[in-house]
Amino acid sequence: MALLTRITGPRDLDRLTPEELERLAGEVRAFLVDSVAKTGGHLGPNLGVVELTIALHRVFHSPQDKVLFDTGHQSYVHKLLTGRQDFSRLRAKGGLSGYPSRAESEHDIIENSHASTVLGWADGLAKANEVLKKDDHVVAVIGDGALTGGMAWEALNNIAAAKDRPLVIVVNDNERSYEPTIGGLANHLATLRTTDGYERFLARGKEVLNRTPVVGKPLYETLHGAKKGLKDFIAPQGMFEDLGLKYVGPIDGHDIAAVESALQRAKRFGGPVLVHCLTEKGRGYQPARQDEADQFHAVGVIHPDTGLPVKSSGADWTSVFGEEMVKLGREREDIVAITAAMMRPVGLHGFAQAYPERVYDVGIAEQHAAVSAAGLATGGLHPVFAVYATFLNRAFDQLLMDVALHQCGVTFVLDRAGVTGSDGASHNGMWDMSILQCVPGLRLSAPRDADQLRAQLREAVDVDDAPTVVRYSKGAVGPAVPAVARIGGMDVLREAGAARPDVLLVSVGALAPMCLEIAGLLDKQGISTTVVDPRWVKPVDEALAPLADQHRVVVTVEDNSRAGGVGSAVAQALRDAGVDVPLRDFGIPERFLDHASRGEVMAEIGLTAPDIARQVTGLVARIDGRYDTETAGAGREAARD
Amino acid sequence: MALLTRITGPRDLDRLTPEELERLAGEVRAFLVDSVAKTGGHLGPNLGVVELTIALHRVFHSPQDKVLFDTGHQSYVHKLLTGRQDFSRLRAKGGLSGYPSRAESEHDIIENSHASTVLGWADGLAKANEVLKKDDHVVAVIGDGALTGGMAWEALNNIAAAKDRPLVIVVNDNERSYEPTIGGLANHLATLRTTDGYERFLARGKEVLNRTPVVGKPLYETLHGAKKGLKDFIAPQGMFEDLGLKYVGPIDGHDIAAVESALQRAKRFGGPVLVHCLTEKGRGYQPARQDEADQFHAVGVIHPDTGLPVKSSGADWTSVFGEEMVKLGREREDIVAITAAMMRPVGLHGFAQAYPERVYDVGIAEQHAAVSAAGLATGGLHPVFAVYATFLNRAFDQLLMDVALHQCGVTFVLDRAGVTGSDGASHNGMWDMSILQCVPGLRLSAPRDADQLRAQLREAVDVDDAPTVVRYSKGAVGPAVPAVARIGGMDVLREAGAARPDVLLVSVGALAPMCLEIAGLLDKQGISTTVVDPRWVKPVDEALAPLADQHRVVVTVEDNSRAGGVGSAVAQALRDAGVDVPLRDFGIPERFLDHASRGEVMAEIGLTAPDIARQVTGLVARIDGRYDTETAGAGREAARD
Repeated sequence: MALLTRITGPRDLDRLTPEELERLAGEVRAFLVDSVAKTGGHLGPNLGVVELTIALHRVFHSPQDKVLFDTGHQSYVHKLLTGRQDFSRLRAKGGLSGYPSRAESEHDIIENSHASTVLGWADGLAKANEVLKKDDHVVAVIGDGALTGGMAWEALNNIAAAKDRPLVIVVNDNERSYEPTIGGLANHLATLRTTDGYERFLARGKEVLNRTPVVGKPLYETLHGAKKGLKDFIAPQGMFEDLGLKYVGPIDGHDIAAVESALQRAKRFGGPVLVHCLTEKGRGYQPARQDEADQFHAVGVIHPDTGLPVKSSGADWTSVFGEEMVKLGREREDIVAITAAMMRPVGLHGFAQAYPERVYDVGIAEQHAAVSAAGLATGGLHPVFAVYATFLNRAFDQLLMDVALHQCGVTFVLDRAGVTGSDGASHNGMWDMSILQCVPGLRLSAPRDADQLRAQLREAVDVDDAPTVVRYSKGAVGPAVPAVARIGGMDVLREAGAARPDVLLVSVGALAPMCLEIAGLLDKQGISTTVVDPRWVKPVDEALAPLADQHRVVVTVEDNSRAGGVGSAVAQALRDAGVDVPLRDFGIPERFLDHASRGEVMAEIGLTAPDIARQVTGLVARIDGRYDTETAGAGREAARD
Repeated sequence: MALLTRITGPRDLDRLTPEELERLAGEVRAFLVDSVAKTGGHLGPNLGVVELTIALHRVFHSPQDKVLFDTGHQSYVHKLLTGRQDFSRLRAKGGLSGYPSRAESEHDIIENSHASTVLGWADGLAKANEVLKKDDHVVAVIGDGALTGGMAWEALNNIAAAKDRPLVIVVNDNERSYEPTIGGLANHLATLRTTDGYERFLARGKEVLNRTPVVGKPLYETLHGAKKGLKDFIAPQGMFEDLGLKYVGPIDGHDIAAVESALQRAKRFGGPVLVHCLTEKGRGYQPARQDEADQFHAVGVIHPDTGLPVKSSGADWTSVFGEEMVKLGREREDIVAITAAMMRPVGLHGFAQAYPERVYDVGIAEQHAAVSAAGLATGGLHPVFAVYATFLNRAFDQLLMDVALHQCGVTFVLDRAGVTGSDGASHNGMWDMSILQCVPGLRLSAPRDADQLRAQLREAVDVDDAPTVVRYSKGAVGPAVPAVARIGGMDVLREAGAARPDVLLVSVGALAPMCLEIAGLLDKQGISTTVVDPRWVKPVDEALAPLADQHRVVVTVEDNSRAGGVGSAVAQALRDAGVDVPLRDFGIPERFLDHASRGEVMAEIGLTAPDIARQVTGLVARIDGRYDTETAGAGREAARD
């Protein structure tokens, strides 16, 4: 790592010779494999952008020029080149974020990692440069997968229309997001890649270059100049130029000099220009290249030589869902499945293998997933759209207006709901139970264990006139939590064992074991506690208000934003039923959560059994006091009348 | 109307001769001008699709074939041809909806009218046909404006990839949404329209046709066949064929025979095909054609001959906002404005005229509006994105992840918030105050009158590290509602005048006059009432809980979904402050609202002063009773310990 350790910022790249740059790329690649093997992280995408990122930072002068990545998981090389080489606590509390982070570096701009946003950001930054008469550059790197998102189209449509507003778009085309990119655009990119003989020409050009002694920049530049001329002559320009974007490419994204040359031309162009770079995900790491699933898109801790996981994970929520979907697909021919470019991460690969004619990968296009689901349902099928909870936000309008308003039987399965942890603020699934509350007719379930996931998924796909949502956590699913009784549609997990029990604890989803632990702690304080799992949290079960009325305090615990969450809905239902039992709602406070392990985040926000038990104890004590106060109040009242 | 009144369903069109079809088109046009002049409605768009809709219903057999419109406001002709000719109560309670409505007809599929959804619906319906092995057809009509929305791109990308799944897309290209369509795509469509000499050829072809006696179908078909062959030779296929879509066009959308011929070929094609039809918004109605603003996109009641409004409207919320923006633009050079294809409807045309270099029409692309605003703010400007409240739902993820997470100073101005009425379920702005509650750092204001709108807009644009939202109603703004005091940031609109007042009434936005009326009614019942306008409803003002604690009951009234709305947020704030004063929250119930006037809708859902006063009276009576019960409860409690 002789070269890499000497790079303290992007300008250190300026002094390196072409051979040194090649060596640096090799060092970066070795560092990534070694380091990410120890911590886990996004390996494949970063191995693919080593040379591209080096070239970007040689041509553009960050942070004055804005270098943006979509998505941010391809920013590890960028981090290494901008003074951040301690990857020992990557994605862990206090360590580097797995995405760009403005708290880490002035070279980072976009922190969230919802795909397809970068061109919109770039358009805004370029417009600001224009209004403020700055001649800084804006360069946006976007994967071919992210181009399938509607936001990218909206941005391209705007960017292309401003002929003299400079902006450089680099398409990092590795033909994949998690899986191979789908759709008409992917086919068109393939055409650009393959039908013009340009790749063969490029290969020949390289051969020539290799046989020629490198005598410094002039020959180098000359050769690339020749490539340019020929390229412009032989390459099909395609839809990007139809839209009005200058198109440059395709470029071998692993040839630093070629990428630099293209970027230099793009930088000088004076208007919107698209540079089409071809890269290989997992480049230079055999285990990644040979992995047909996702080329090591994101890995846990692995053996660096073999790429095999150090410890195999147990049963997780995703696989329980995936297996049940295969069964459901066999039982019901009307069930179809939808994914937004994440077939394997959401557990639909089994269904896809079994029923390839009934599964749709729509690209990174959650809006289309939801609206086409409305069409599928209206056409007589029952679609199940499996998506990370945080990405459902992209499809809120379609869920509301296309699915719910039209009373379509569509099931949304939200994976990675609640606190997810190491991916940071943008990947926590902490909004769904808030924004879905106002969707008329929608039914929302939060299974507490694998059995309940299977059961509630089946209940969900049986609803044919409204959207249903099943949401569950990330990672391993815990042991079964048995019910001791059922009231209405709710499972009683623990009976208080007192004639007039103190606390009704409403447990949401995977927090059931924690709620039972809370009840145990309260019990030790002499506070008798009923624990109930409503199973379906929206609408609020009609049996809940009468049950609450038999208790002195209601406590709700959920793995979702407190604002407008299940606790608020329960409180409203109690108000509407005229049940004035005091309620306390525990959930995620109204702020964005830094990356850390799930347990660390839960502890930080006070969502632990001891924290909640302590607060409930205090609340019960206060209620006891209040009764006295209220007695006095009633007396005052009587005096007033 | 001799022909029109004989049309009871689409199949009645089959029997008409070409000349009769022309006459029918004339009758439809006359009917629309006459009828919409009386009721108001979307006039321009429907005058543009008369011939197109006739041709659609001759070629496709609805309802077995699915004929879909984007947006639905261009469905009036479709209604006339599918048995609905009583337009006397268009958009009024009990009358025809202004959009397709499944309750009205089996020929209607998509009810909502959020743009750019139709291709996603069509993709879903076509997939269902494939799975269920039906050979029904799906045809989707989409305006060139709606094509600028990201959903349209996501759908095109999917549709184009399935080469043998039949689906017909008709692009109704009138070069406008409200205003001329913007962006690279619009430029490309213009290229398709103008650079190939095809239009001149078409004109010549028509001349020939006109000079030739029409001897029945063969000659007709032959001529169109010739057009096809030549078209394929001379027309640029452009980006649609790059994506993999068969392109047919451009077609004169006012030539029934030409459109029919193109649609017949498209229907037979056996894969996805796009038919590009050129139409004129407002076709055949001189006042609409001459209107440069929006060609009579949507009108109120007008004189049919002149197109002039029968009564001019007074000052409305939109124009108050628009005028203040012009002033703000003069005072602050960093303020820029954004609209999603609705410059005039949201009141930004004045700003656009004064500061053309600081206004951005991004197309029907709310996602891009929000994400590019994040870029503009990061680049040093303060963007104001003015949008109908209901359309903000499209940009929720971008508001949350791009604006709020990045702490960007962006102001969202939500017009047509609350119950809007005649446009029906999809245009009520009743979701914003629910879904925005969980956005960390966001500040949300609901001005009660014109003065407050001006003041709160200024407060909003002064915030540079968080999203701010200002939301207001549709239509006329009422007289000023003066404050009698200020507590914290809240305006007291009425003091109760009792040492221990009964009710704290929290009034949200334009409902202030109604809340004062409620207070007056309660006063007559001997219930003393304070009325407070929090001005900023999120975060809940810190002074609210102590104030609530001085009352016996808190009542909130808002023009938004009750689920997770301001009432829920106030209730949570009171719980957190340990204030256990009973609360009752009034708002919109959890259902979609049928079209009717705003007043009729408000009455139907019980959001009127008498209704609310009656319920609060009952609540206070119950609370009085409860105090007795609680005294008993406290006694029981004491007995238990």
